[in-house]
Amino acid sequence: MVKVGIIGGTGYVGAELIRLLMNHKEVTISGISSVSFSGQDISSIYPSFYNITSLICTDEDEVIEKSDVIFAALPHGLSEHIAKKVLDKNKICIDMGADFRLSDESVYKKWYGKSFDLSELHGSEVYGLPELNRTRIKETKLVANPGCYATSIELALLPLISKGLIEEKGIIADSKSGVSGAGRALSQGSHFTDCNESLSAYKIANHRHTPEIEEVLNSASLDKKVKLIFTPHLLPINRGILSTIYTTPKEQINLVDIHKEFTEFYSKEPFVNVLPLGEVAKINNVRLSNYCQISLHYDEDSNKLILISCIDNMIKGAAGQGIQNMNILLGFDESEGLNTIAPAF
Amino acid sequence: MVKVGIIGGTGYVGAELIRLLMNHKEVTISGISSVSFSGQDISSIYPSFYNITSLICTDEDEVIEKSDVIFAALPHGLSEHIAKKVLDKNKICIDMGADFRLSDESVYKKWYGKSFDLSELHGSEVYGLPELNRTRIKETKLVANPGCYATSIELALLPLISKGLIEEKGIIADSKSGVSGAGRALSQGSHFTDCNESLSAYKIANHRHTPEIEEVLNSASLDKKVKLIFTPHLLPINRGILSTIYTTPKEQINLVDIHKEFTEFYSKEPFVNVLPLGEVAKINNVRLSNYCQISLHYDEDSNKLILISCIDNMIKGAAGQGIQNMNILLGFDESEGLNTIAPAF
Amino acid sequence: MVKVGIIGGTGYVGAELIRLLMNHKEVTISGISSVSFSGQDISSIYPSFYNITSLICTDEDEVIEKSDVIFAALPHGLSEHIAKKVLDKNKICIDMGADFRLSDESVYKKWYGKSFDLSELHGSEVYGLPELNRTRIKETKLVANPGCYATSIELALLPLISKGLIEEKGIIADSKSGVSGAGRALSQGSHFTDCNESLSAYKIANHRHTPEIEEVLNSASLDKKVKLIFTPHLLPINRGILSTIYTTPKEQINLVDIHKEFTEFYSKEPFVNVLPLGEVAKINNVRLSNYCQISLHYDEDSNKLILISCIDNMIKGAAGQGIQNMNILLGFDESEGLNTIAPAF
Amino acid sequence: MVKVGIIGGTGYVGAELIRLLMNHKEVTISGISSVSFSGQDISSIYPSFYNITSLICTDEDEVIEKSDVIFAALPHGLSEHIAKKVLDKNKICIDMGADFRLSDESVYKKWYGKSFDLSELHGSEVYGLPELNRTRIKETKLVANPGCYATSIELALLPLISKGLIEEKGIIADSKSGVSGAGRALSQGSHFTDCNESLSAYKIANHRHTPEIEEVLNSASLDKKVKLIFTPHLLPINRGILSTIYTTPKEQINLVDIHKEFTEFYSKEPFVNVLPLGEVAKINNVRLSNYCQISLHYDEDSNKLILISCIDNMIKGAAGQGIQNMNILLGFDESEGLNTIAPAF
Repeated sequence: MVKVGIIGGTGYVGAELIRLLMNHKEVTISGISSVSFSGQDISSIYPSFYNITSLICTDEDEVIEKSDVIFAALPHGLSEHIAKKVLDKNKICIDMGADFRLSDESVYKKWYGKSFDLSELHGSEVYGLPELNRTRIKETKLVANPGCYATSIELALLPLISKGLIEEKGIIADSKSGVSGAGRALSQGSHFTDCNESLSAYKIANHRHTPEIEEVLNSASLDKKVKLIFTPHLLPINRGILSTIYTTPKEQINLVDIHKEFTEFYSKEPFVNVLPLGEVAKINNVRLSNYCQISLHYDEDSNKLILISCIDNMIKGAAGQGIQNMNILLGFDESEGLNTIAPAF
Repeated sequence: MVKVGIIGGTGYVGAELIRLLMNHKEVTISGISSVSFSGQDISSIYPSFYNITSLICTDEDEVIEKSDVIFAALPHGLSEHIAKKVLDKNKICIDMGADFRLSDESVYKKWYGKSFDLSELHGSEVYGLPELNRTRIKETKLVANPGCYATSIELALLPLISKGLIEEKGIIADSKSGVSGAGRALSQGSHFTDCNESLSAYKIANHRHTPEIEEVLNSASLDKKVKLIFTPHLLPINRGILSTIYTTPKEQINLVDIHKEFTEFYSKEPFVNVLPLGEVAKINNVRLSNYCQISLHYDEDSNKLILISCIDNMIKGAAGQGIQNMNILLGFDESEGLNTIAPAF
Repeated sequence: MVKVGIIGGTGYVGAELIRLLMNHKEVTISGISSVSFSGQDISSIYPSFYNITSLICTDEDEVIEKSDVIFAALPHGLSEHIAKKVLDKNKICIDMGADFRLSDESVYKKWYGKSFDLSELHGSEVYGLPELNRTRIKETKLVANPGCYATSIELALLPLISKGLIEEKGIIADSKSGVSGAGRALSQGSHFTDCNESLSAYKIANHRHTPEIEEVLNSASLDKKVKLIFTPHLLPINRGILSTIYTTPKEQINLVDIHKEFTEFYSKEPFVNVLPLGEVAKINNVRLSNYCQISLHYDEDSNKLILISCIDNMIKGAAGQGIQNMNILLGFDESEGLNTIAPAF
Repeated sequence: MVKVGIIGGTGYVGAELIRLLMNHKEVTISGISSVSFSGQDISSIYPSFYNITSLICTDEDEVIEKSDVIFAALPHGLSEHIAKKVLDKNKICIDMGADFRLSDESVYKKWYGKSFDLSELHGSEVYGLPELNRTRIKETKLVANPGCYATSIELALLPLISKGLIEEKGIIADSKSGVSGAGRALSQGSHFTDCNESLSAYKIANHRHTPEIEEVLNSASLDKKVKLIFTPHLLPINRGILSTIYTTPKEQINLVDIHKEFTEFYSKEPFVNVLPLGEVAKINNVRLSNYCQISLHYDEDSNKLILISCIDNMIKGAAGQGIQNMNILLGFDESEGLNTIAPAF
């Protein structure tokens, strides 16, 4: 059994990693760390674990010491130093945060307000979108797990951008995410009565996943001119992201052909399903699963190809994708631990 | 006291009209009709009315007979004949449905699948968006109350379209509505477990409010070339619409100037509030009220002016706007019966 | 116009008072105070007020100075000193908190962990349940506004207890409240993802409304032996309380007779509606209104009379009842400002 | 691989069985039947299955023919004939409905309005509560899977009733269930806007799980006098049941001792967890899992032992428990296919 440790085990991503990894056949959880809850049993924070596991939060060094693979589930800015410790011991680091998602330091600095602390580490990471980088993931020791919004948008656009079928500029992604995306930390915006029965946009034209998506799509594009207008919204649900994406085909299209391209593009992917034409992807088709569903729609009058892309923000958008990356990297069955099907309700 | 009757009093719009009109100082409800619940007390259908009113559902002719003003709250296709009866008696008809919203019969036929039944009535109606047509509303006897999505989108775009500040083609409206918009009739899509904790788009590039919005905006535009891409979504909340609207300014803009234009455009409107720059409109700022809140945002890199427009779909998007139209038409204080402020939660 | 001030205007009860009083015909809001938001416009905290009112938070002394009636909407322990200042100026104080709800200081000390700070004030207050104390409310200058759970339970039990129809001991109240009852302050329990799609009981057999209810019911009872088992639950909704109350009739009963007693008991009450037998009170019949609905049910096999009692916790359970008390005290129409009917959805 | 068939595969219980059995290592789904959706792919009804399985709905005889184990997930009154066909072929039948839950035909007739159609089958069934009947389940071919409310209440009361620690009469169970309990069929009560943001009780003192619980608890009681007052409520959430149960200990108790009894009673049970004293069971601790959590509380003043019992109504309350019964019956690991841990959100 491979020993897996989680740094930051008590945040939402950490807890979701524990929950999923508990049922992974090839690994065992060797330790979890938490600054806030050091010494406490995970079930004192998440009582759903009561009598199922009694993992105790220790410190990060102990977790790294005892583990072969380390997930860093931390706010941005805290993972570089963890990565260094892990890589120095020749172990594997899967960073769930943003520290290694952007390869261009100037872009990172613009959006995150700081330079890389450890520039020497950058360049060796692989952006962990299996559908784009599966081969490279197998060969790295440092995975930058994608952002949740980024995953939903990139998967919808990859087939189009990689073939140059749509205008790279002026792509609009109108995304809606459940509240778990804001994490466990208390905030007025996540206060029940503030967000329940409401909907709000935030960080309009100013969300940090914008440069991430642009960089990733440009890496798959010939022209490298992708420019995104991105508006995230806070949905009063626990989980799930739905992105409605408006693109302009370079030429009038035949939707049947485009659909065929999509289906073929993802034909071997275990977790991306392109719905039949006429169907519309929705959040409860994928919630609580590692699947992404995409549907395609065409406004012929205005020549807009509209994509709907849905994932569970905590699974395909975070913990599940991290495990998928680990499975690829370690040569396990890519679906191990990730076979839950979304409940209809 | 003016006597007001409601045809179709037991649907959601009808019930909301009753609820609001019960507290209107200038009118009394003279009767309500219902095909399904004829003879029944309104409180047997909506027990919130128990011991508060004991209106009994009768038939439409009786309601028309007893009333000075008649609200027709019916599915499309059923209001024309009501309107004729009402107008023949020289009374006032406010149609809450779609029968009179489109003035172009060919467009109506394309989207609603039928011709006008009574062409002679068309032309005398006024589209009941007070912010656009206040003067004309005062002089008509037939008001076509706007659609809910249409209201939210038109109010956001009117200041821009009327001054020719944005490209008329390629406007994208990504709208999200609470489930009450689907009405009281049972359907799988409104089944609690189907929509709760989910989000779904529907009628993508194919919703009947599209031609309504285009026609209304074109009536205020010099160029008359408005072309909308419109995607409605079903939000798992009871009430409220948030429309995120993406427009392309004809020239690079200064957001402060645009904001000033907006503020001035609506400076005398009792129910439209343009938020200060930096604020973001959200549904619970307007829910359960007749207010519309609009916020403005600019993606300078892509030259996209993004508008967020929020209303309560059942009030400013239906019953409240109908009452506002009645108030204007009868010379009452425009806010009478509509002064409820949105609760913060 | 009577001038009304609100101490603690930015908590949920304060905000609800502002919202409702803005539409009260006999009063004007002369000032609001807030420690946390001093100097700020109320709409910066609750943007639903934007462009509707621009009340600025000042300090308590200024509010008291400028007002005839002062609502104290504060956490317990902070109202006594406010009350003294208000009464010393011969003005009226309506305390929305718990400081004056219990007349027995030893009981207060047991449940709130402190003695009365100003014992001399106690005794002059009237417990503001209009259905019990209307006459006395007219003659006081200090109203102790009831707790939310307490209101729902007391209204259901008063007709029975006052006539000695049920066993005073062993009454079980299983209550469920929306999250707004926990207020605006952030807490893990009110974090969206913690309470959404869940239900939890709290303070089982240990909630401070227990002694309040017992004292109030005993004041209406001959035997003064009321003993309550009370379990509050946190419902994942914004507003509303439903209390399911299990009582044991002293003798086998005829439900029709009991129902008649109830109906007569409340026949002149503007805000308490006893539903017909066979109907079941539910939260959305009263939400956003000042009404209480009660339904009666009988388990003949076990001789249990089961009562369902519903209110909006923020209106009849707080701000609305406070205004009702003010209306009574000042001789206004008791329903002024409180005539909103619950929307069906 | 054992071949499993599902009669009634498109209702909520059927769909949940498919979802869970798809990941069961020892079985394969050999067929599903549906009257309403005959010939259709399951993913046309539940699009979460799209590209994951393409089970086609056939008819019941075909399913029985191809299967070793048959789950009957049907409304009551329809399973007896299925059971007969299955047993006649010497196969195994797990009835998810109510047809075999009550052994006393007169009680069945009173509550379900009809006699047994096939009396000869009755007597051979075993009530499928593993914690009560594990040994007998191993030896039967006909399992009556318990009701959802019944499961939550019986598990909480079994340790007390079996040892005669509480008064058998006058037990009060105040239960709250998510809307999925009402199934997939449309009804006004399950219409989103009717139940969202509300709470309602129904079938007060009149729910069919009452006699089921009484019979099961009496089977474990010496005195056989269990008499329950049961009030179910409809919670505006998708899944989960929380039962708050009020019992009267025959003598004053020491809660620590009772807690110890409970813990020991369930010490070997894989799916029942008794929380430490001071903790309170809540729905999101068990939602989407097969676990039951129980917490114990004591109101010493009134000598009431209060139990909180939580399950997922669709898993431990239906499909999961059915699979647990199958696992026991076929000698599989009892937890196979049921190891999902409840997500914290």
